[in-house]
Amino acid sequence: MSDLGVMFQELRDLDVNMKGTDFLLTWEKSEAELRAVLKTARILKELHRLGLSTKVFDSGLAVSLFRDNSTRTRFSFASACNLLGLEVQDLDEGKSQVAHGETVRETATMISFLTDVIGIRDDMFLGLGNSYMKEVAAAVEESYQERVLPQRPTLVNLQCDLDHPTQSTADLLHLEDVFGGLNNLRGKTLAMTWAYSPSYGKPLSVPQGIIALMSRFGMNIRLAHPEGYGLVPEVVETARGFANESGGSFEVMNSMEDAFKDADIVYPKSWAPFAVMGERSTLLQAGDQAGLKDLEKRALAQNAKHTDWECTDEKMALTRNGDALYMHCLPADITGVSCKQGEVSASTFERYRLRTYAEAGYKPFSIAAMILHSQFADVPRLLGEVVNRNEIRRGL
Amino acid sequence: MSDLGVMFQELRDLDVNMKGTDFLLTWEKSEAELRAVLKTARILKELHRLGLSTKVFDSGLAVSLFRDNSTRTRFSFASACNLLGLEVQDLDEGKSQVAHGETVRETATMISFLTDVIGIRDDMFLGLGNSYMKEVAAAVEESYQERVLPQRPTLVNLQCDLDHPTQSTADLLHLEDVFGGLNNLRGKTLAMTWAYSPSYGKPLSVPQGIIALMSRFGMNIRLAHPEGYGLVPEVVETARGFANESGGSFEVMNSMEDAFKDADIVYPKSWAPFAVMGERSTLLQAGDQAGLKDLEKRALAQNAKHTDWECTDEKMALTRNGDALYMHCLPADITGVSCKQGEVSASTFERYRLRTYAEAGYKPFSIAAMILHSQFADVPRLLGEVVNRNEIRRGL
Amino acid sequence: MSDLGVMFQELRDLDVNMKGTDFLLTWEKSEAELRAVLKTARILKELHRLGLSTKVFDSGLAVSLFRDNSTRTRFSFASACNLLGLEVQDLDEGKSQVAHGETVRETATMISFLTDVIGIRDDMFLGLGNSYMKEVAAAVEESYQERVLPQRPTLVNLQCDLDHPTQSTADLLHLEDVFGGLNNLRGKTLAMTWAYSPSYGKPLSVPQGIIALMSRFGMNIRLAHPEGYGLVPEVVETARGFANESGGSFEVMNSMEDAFKDADIVYPKSWAPFAVMGERSTLLQAGDQAGLKDLEKRALAQNAKHTDWECTDEKMALTRNGDALYMHCLPADITGVSCKQGEVSASTFERYRLRTYAEAGYKPFSIAAMILHSQFADVPRLLGEVVNRNEIRRGL
Repeated sequence: MSDLGVMFQELRDLDVNMKGTDFLLTWEKSEAELRAVLKTARILKELHRLGLSTKVFDSGLAVSLFRDNSTRTRFSFASACNLLGLEVQDLDEGKSQVAHGETVRETATMISFLTDVIGIRDDMFLGLGNSYMKEVAAAVEESYQERVLPQRPTLVNLQCDLDHPTQSTADLLHLEDVFGGLNNLRGKTLAMTWAYSPSYGKPLSVPQGIIALMSRFGMNIRLAHPEGYGLVPEVVETARGFANESGGSFEVMNSMEDAFKDADIVYPKSWAPFAVMGERSTLLQAGDQAGLKDLEKRALAQNAKHTDWECTDEKMALTRNGDALYMHCLPADITGVSCKQGEVSASTFERYRLRTYAEAGYKPFSIAAMILHSQFADVPRLLGEVVNRNEIRRGL
Repeated sequence: MSDLGVMFQELRDLDVNMKGTDFLLTWEKSEAELRAVLKTARILKELHRLGLSTKVFDSGLAVSLFRDNSTRTRFSFASACNLLGLEVQDLDEGKSQVAHGETVRETATMISFLTDVIGIRDDMFLGLGNSYMKEVAAAVEESYQERVLPQRPTLVNLQCDLDHPTQSTADLLHLEDVFGGLNNLRGKTLAMTWAYSPSYGKPLSVPQGIIALMSRFGMNIRLAHPEGYGLVPEVVETARGFANESGGSFEVMNSMEDAFKDADIVYPKSWAPFAVMGERSTLLQAGDQAGLKDLEKRALAQNAKHTDWECTDEKMALTRNGDALYMHCLPADITGVSCKQGEVSASTFERYRLRTYAEAGYKPFSIAAMILHSQFADVPRLLGEVVNRNEIRRGL
Repeated sequence: MSDLGVMFQELRDLDVNMKGTDFLLTWEKSEAELRAVLKTARILKELHRLGLSTKVFDSGLAVSLFRDNSTRTRFSFASACNLLGLEVQDLDEGKSQVAHGETVRETATMISFLTDVIGIRDDMFLGLGNSYMKEVAAAVEESYQERVLPQRPTLVNLQCDLDHPTQSTADLLHLEDVFGGLNNLRGKTLAMTWAYSPSYGKPLSVPQGIIALMSRFGMNIRLAHPEGYGLVPEVVETARGFANESGGSFEVMNSMEDAFKDADIVYPKSWAPFAVMGERSTLLQAGDQAGLKDLEKRALAQNAKHTDWECTDEKMALTRNGDALYMHCLPADITGVSCKQGEVSASTFERYRLRTYAEAGYKPFSIAAMILHSQFADVPRLLGEVVNRNEIRRGL
């Protein structure tokens, strides 16, 4: 059986049906569902490489709503939708009437009359991003049930305050590739560590997404950060539980060096302390500029005590055979390149640069896979027909 | 004959050909043309519900130009174009060179070389929006006649200073549904009434569009507003004339209660007095910020005398069997929800909320119907072929 | 043989293969390559006029990056991509994370995972626009070679500091039309002259693009400007060399009247002196607002000495039979229309207005031709299949 044939068989064997569901948090999904998304992403990537058209929508809108800046995810979402035949329509809240007293549930319905998919990034406010997405989901569900909407658009979380599933699944696809399969990840040690950055207020969703997803595949997870930089406690407990169930382990430590020691994979990435993010959310919502300035000052001063949390060649030498895989969701704060002092040294980053690009390259396909599974009951059958149709993507 | 078959027959019987014409004001269209647009919208909605692809353009651009904020209409236009196979390209005057001394007729041609449709919202300046659209239409007509353009893009009015035809036709489709057919609207009483809003400067195009369209179908139209809040006199006279012709009636009154009395349909919606809109247009064009501030102050003070023009459960009790249909173009100013005191009480709005959503849900299809009729001579034949083609919109 | 048949044969005879190359500067292309682009543009224009679908991409993204305002080129790029089946995704640097320390090579890869074409306008900084495009090209080339990207997106220069090839090729198509063939341009005199404008800082890319392209087809090129308004010397020398090779001539003069004398074609267009553009680039990059203000004052004062460089009916009377072809890339600064005093008098411009629109009408097709040749090895074969497929663009 060809590689593609094997992948199709594996996808069929998982036997999942996620039609009509949203993809908000990986920990709301079963392991089979996650594996199905990963496998589907891999099949789509292969079909694209082979030059086959994977359009399965003749028309239809995919609405994107970015409440924070984005390059990678914006283009990944646009690419994924284009790959499947959906047209992206961006909801720019500045140009819309959203500010003029519209309720969330009203807007959600107004943009959905001919919409199949809604992608949302809402990561600025701790405690609010995931809630907002649930509110939108409930609104379109109500309108669908009440026959106001002819179809129920499904949501994809393009980063919230809790999780960043399109990133973490792309990261996992990268790991699968580098280590030769998900099974080979069992027993491997992944160090998700805080790193110094000259900015503050970076969301917690990446580290949380990583520990909550990787812990489900038998890995030994080390979460490392300076004291006072903890993540949302519930997510940490979720990850600990998954690690125990899957035969891995879960440790929290306060030393980057300890975390790197014999690690197979390191993911050094800055984030704001949980408490700072909470305070910041309150101030942002209150529009308290003076308070925000003061918080920034205090937070940067706190960060500045930990400039030694930098991923360097010396620290990389501590890892398994001095050769761990370095990962980052990009853009990284690279010392001497994008800032004076940052998360990673220039020489370390340069060594892994192209591999971090390859890591990012899975994202369009993991998004497309989430969309497919939320829209179609039998994805293996659908993709089988795509292969049989045998239409080339470009040329005649 | 199936429902769809009946609709097709009715559309054929109307025997209209609007190819090459713009859709700017409903009162420039014959009753048969309006009925054809309504019927086509209904057919498109049904084909979409059945999951059929209604793409009739393989490629082509639809240019949108929004000179005012928009959520609903922006997404409705994007949805309509996508439904037919056109790609929306937004003309953002801020990012273009329009400001740099380009004339309207030049820009109109520059954006039209491969463009089939142009949708414009220009509702801020009384006396200018409709004129601007006519100027654009004349420019593309000249360039087409002079063979500079290979095709003549047709215009859709997405709201001007005089009319809001994509809204009023959607509203009429909703009424047709609720009352079981256009013929059942004969003799029904519709109260288009002013309502209090804490903002000022809302366009006149919705109330004007409603009275000028609904008056053509034998309804008894009541236009109610406080003294000094009159609409553009020519449009009021047009509506009065239509009402007389169609066997309905037309009354202007200065009491919300009187207007609601035994009404079958109420449409309470704020707008700025005609005189205020005129003064505001002059000040906006002159960039007179101090003058605008002063005008706002005076206008809000004037509004504040009429906070009792609120649609409440008490007032709804005055309507036919206490059960009139409440309509709104959304977003409504809802007391205690989107503002302290507004157009409608929270409990009244909540009772009709999903019905106002359904009302809005016709807009993508009324826009698509306008586009189809402006682009194709024989729409029933074209849609017949769409049905025969029998291509599904999603899946293989 | 039909006209179309002749064009196909001529295209085949040129026997070029530009697959995988970028289109940055016309002077990097062979004459056969340029002729192939022109011929392909003409074929696409004819196929579009005939109502045939020229979609050759089933899906795929075309990324646009505009670092300066644009109407014409933005819509031309969008039209070209739509014509071929690519979906435009705009990289808005304000909404992306580009500012947050991302390197150019990283962003270039991040937007390219499923991208076939990248179009860039970067004309603000003398010495930087072309360099930036080369940097992007090198980045995607590296990522493609390293298998991070599954395909190598090709670049189209939508105006840089040196050249504006989509404009100059459109202009040449217009000349070919007006004079009945490229061969008829031999021996014709084209006056590319500076003209007065009340603004300053206009890019040099249009005059440079014109002299460097038209000089390759045996024309007599006159470059005229006040002293101190020279273009980039290397480009002027390139144009002079081409003129000598192609049997034409090349002269620089300091009088608009001398340049117009017996000219067959005049192209009066303002630009900033080379030295001013250099100083402005330095100040812009330094963010020196006071310096920019001062420079503007000095530059406008310098300009004001040359208000007599206006294209008027009197000056047009000096041209060959008083009947030279007037050209402009638009928008022109028209005296009494878009400014008090400008590049061209209202009566002269009005006489040629529709012809300048027709000139602009070639741009979507010259861009589409560049895209096709950069993406497909055998364009005549591909377009032959498009003709054989015989799919109509609109209707069923």
